[in-house]
Amino acid sequence: MTDWDVYNKNCPTRLVLDRIADKWTVLVVGALAMETKRFGQLKRELDGISQKMLTQTLRGLERDGIVHRKVYPTVPPKVEYSLTALGKTLVELVEEVRHWSEGHIDDVQTAQKRYDVVKKQSELI
Amino acid sequence: MTDWDVYNKNCPTRLVLDRIADKWTVLVVGALAMETKRFGQLKRELDGISQKMLTQTLRGLERDGIVHRKVYPTVPPKVEYSLTALGKTLVELVEEVRHWSEGHIDDVQTAQKRYDVVKKQSELI
Repeated sequence: MTDWDVYNKNCPTRLVLDRIADKWTVLVVGALAMETKRFGQLKRELDGISQKMLTQTLRGLERDGIVHRKVYPTVPPKVEYSLTALGKTLVELVEEVRHWSEGHIDDVQTAQKRYDVVKKQSELI
Repeated sequence: MTDWDVYNKNCPTRLVLDRIADKWTVLVVGALAMETKRFGQLKRELDGISQKMLTQTLRGLERDGIVHRKVYPTVPPKVEYSLTALGKTLVELVEEVRHWSEGHIDDVQTAQKRYDVVKKQSELI
């Protein structure tokens, strides 16, 4: 039994929820699921992410023990990112989140069109 | 086979990912999993959410066809929120996200402490 409760704003699990229920976390964890990658590779794969946002996301995931950052003492230093054992427990979950998005996009787009039409009609009344 | 790809910033699935990979979505869908609720109930349950953020979250979920908003013609109008059939397909997934947060908080906190100590040491060098 646990007393943790993400519905309580002061519970530390709320911060963890905020980290993992995040678009960029889903994409980073998915991108590292199969192999170790460098910053530039991740940046290219996560189309549209800014340098700053990727840095912030990786730093947060590293602090939470989800991503491991390895620096090789070369010139310039080579830095590689991989999932930790804890991070690997997230892979299946983020895959499901991704699959839900890709699998239900038709339903969502249909709903959006209907919503926008109804909204427009109600504004004309 | 599908050509949808959340890694492509112009793919509409990216927007869906952004909606569902969101802390408040996880909490709203979880709160509506068992029963229909009114705005005030949701606001109380989602400790720490602002009126504005809850309104925005519910409107977005309604537009995406995940939440249904029913208005009763009373004075004042009574408004109830429930999950649609599409929304119900999300319940298990958000439960898993919530459980991951609650189940791995010890590992995350241990990692955070270690990270902060190492960071402090490296700043002292």
